[in-house]
Amino acid sequence: MTFALREDRLFRRLDAVPFTKGPIRALIVGLLAPLEGRRLIEVGSGSGGVTVTLAEALGPRGELWALEPSPEAFGLTKENLRRFGLADRVHLVAEAAPSGLTSLPAVDGAFIGGHGPHLESIVETLWEKLLPGGRLVLSALLLDTALAALKLFEERGPTEAWNVFPARGRKLGPSWAFLGENPICLVWCDKKPQKEEQP
Amino acid sequence: MTFALREDRLFRRLDAVPFTKGPIRALIVGLLAPLEGRRLIEVGSGSGGVTVTLAEALGPRGELWALEPSPEAFGLTKENLRRFGLADRVHLVAEAAPSGLTSLPAVDGAFIGGHGPHLESIVETLWEKLLPGGRLVLSALLLDTALAALKLFEERGPTEAWNVFPARGRKLGPSWAFLGENPICLVWCDKKPQKEEQP
Amino acid sequence: MTFALREDRLFRRLDAVPFTKGPIRALIVGLLAPLEGRRLIEVGSGSGGVTVTLAEALGPRGELWALEPSPEAFGLTKENLRRFGLADRVHLVAEAAPSGLTSLPAVDGAFIGGHGPHLESIVETLWEKLLPGGRLVLSALLLDTALAALKLFEERGPTEAWNVFPARGRKLGPSWAFLGENPICLVWCDKKPQKEEQP
Amino acid sequence: MTFALREDRLFRRLDAVPFTKGPIRALIVGLLAPLEGRRLIEVGSGSGGVTVTLAEALGPRGELWALEPSPEAFGLTKENLRRFGLADRVHLVAEAAPSGLTSLPAVDGAFIGGHGPHLESIVETLWEKLLPGGRLVLSALLLDTALAALKLFEERGPTEAWNVFPARGRKLGPSWAFLGENPICLVWCDKKPQKEEQP
Repeated sequence: MTFALREDRLFRRLDAVPFTKGPIRALIVGLLAPLEGRRLIEVGSGSGGVTVTLAEALGPRGELWALEPSPEAFGLTKENLRRFGLADRVHLVAEAAPSGLTSLPAVDGAFIGGHGPHLESIVETLWEKLLPGGRLVLSALLLDTALAALKLFEERGPTEAWNVFPARGRKLGPSWAFLGENPICLVWCDKKPQKEEQP
Repeated sequence: MTFALREDRLFRRLDAVPFTKGPIRALIVGLLAPLEGRRLIEVGSGSGGVTVTLAEALGPRGELWALEPSPEAFGLTKENLRRFGLADRVHLVAEAAPSGLTSLPAVDGAFIGGHGPHLESIVETLWEKLLPGGRLVLSALLLDTALAALKLFEERGPTEAWNVFPARGRKLGPSWAFLGENPICLVWCDKKPQKEEQP
Repeated sequence: MTFALREDRLFRRLDAVPFTKGPIRALIVGLLAPLEGRRLIEVGSGSGGVTVTLAEALGPRGELWALEPSPEAFGLTKENLRRFGLADRVHLVAEAAPSGLTSLPAVDGAFIGGHGPHLESIVETLWEKLLPGGRLVLSALLLDTALAALKLFEERGPTEAWNVFPARGRKLGPSWAFLGENPICLVWCDKKPQKEEQP
Repeated sequence: MTFALREDRLFRRLDAVPFTKGPIRALIVGLLAPLEGRRLIEVGSGSGGVTVTLAEALGPRGELWALEPSPEAFGLTKENLRRFGLADRVHLVAEAAPSGLTSLPAVDGAFIGGHGPHLESIVETLWEKLLPGGRLVLSALLLDTALAALKLFEERGPTEAWNVFPARGRKLGPSWAFLGENPICLVWCDKKPQKEEQP
């Protein structure tokens, strides 16, 4: 039996490449579940933490396209997928968004983990790629990104957001402490479902 | 397309019955994913927030047994499952744990959302019901429960924990604020997989 | 013996008027300490929570000018000061900033708890009122305010900020839980001290 | 003009010696204010972070006795006090509590930052040293310590607690992020004031 959420310490990491910690990866899976057999796009795979977690949760019938323009981060994503035996399950695209998105098919969901200067056109392009009823999720460490995403998403549909502050349990002597990780903003928006699907 | 995480405001709630908010439900799904087709036990369904979310994520091939001894909470769980069209997908058991667990089959995962005075024997019984490689997860609002769970779990296997403080985005005039929800401890432990499954 | 931090439940409050909870008031005192005998300006006193706490910490030799343009909030600040026997210690000004600031003297510190549409000119005016070495502190619930303050402050001097998620202990049966309050951003900046004071 | 809260980066630190970060030091000052001219005891000064902050806030007329049995931590506290020009303002006691407390005078407040195996007798002894109306504050990183303190304090008087998750602003490129620090529990209890002081 395998769980999608692998321990942070099992990933290869590099100082300069962002890595999304366990609690935030779990929240992203929780926001996009049920994942099995679905199709997703990830923009900005960074160290591949979210890529690995989504690939495992999508299962062998799912499909994931992950874009990462930095050669260093691209290599790290590839290595972490290989480390967990998931290299065959992800279409890795060594290109920046939005240009690298053009040829991709329509998807059930999309996740923006990193973006560079073109957030607005990335959101615009991903929104077009989303099937009716699909969900767009973004995670932000930067205040500017959170605020920009809130404004771009709420123009498109009903937008929700969380700011989550996680701490990780650590055994210290005979007791336990919780050690703080970075608070992260998650912002998401759902595309209107087709008429016959509406409640 | 349906996502397992429904908005908090869509659930029926009663003042006296605990309700697990969205971010914590998302974390529980993230810790137990992939869920499709699996078998789970939930102890203490409360308002049915986690029950609804897990039932949706398990899909039609999954199975969920949910125990809730309080008639008021039991009725609320039932009503919330019905509200989301999931009544047929869950075996609701109007009994307390551990006695209500005896006749249940072996499962892939178990979640303790509420427990009463018998946490130790509940953990013991659920641990026996877990298949090799299965995962036991508990959520705690109370400090005593978190500490007791950490100590009971770490006797059984490698134990991890998060303390997560979520805040929910709210549009206030032209801007956004984050409104705090209760910090919750999540504690989990995996049962050793069978030899041939080990990496 | 009196402590400046009074319990939240002792204040009179109204639904429509913002109230700064205990942990945030404690942080504001901690950022401005030592307070005894100093002179301060508060912009946007709201319910008077911070006003009461600062007035107590400033002691009888300190001076505090508190501006609040809303008649409802102004009345509430006045009532809360009276409730704690501090009415004589604060100059309450029923005017908006920055216009209400013009006639005020130079001060050791200033706190912005609320502002309306003129944040930039409020910061500009308060900065001029600050004595060399003085400190300007702002608290923000809104993302836009936090970001605007960070940008306005860092143009003036070395700027620091915290985002703090507080939870309050509550006895539940024989145990304790922590109930979440709103995460708040605190941003502050110090005016350069005069040459002879520099380390 | 000097503020009691010095920047974390200005302190000397050692890996093995606990250091209380800025937001928690600010909360401790906020809980004990007004501090000027008061008398305090600190048990377990660690790196001296709280010692320096309290010494500055107490002013030249206040008095602080700080106990620290570990030679390494004792030296670090001493060095940090010297670094901020506060060495003359604190009675450093190189002894463990409760034995090191016996000869100390009655005080207005006490803070427990570290304790070892004798928390119960430390609380008992400090409680006797507290003047009527005085306040006892404890900070805890460990779950066991928080729970033990809550239970020891509530036997003595009305007890309050916060669990605070702080994050620190950091400029990243043109924007700001908040980087998580450890969540800390603060527990406090006030000794009954003498009859004539009661409201």
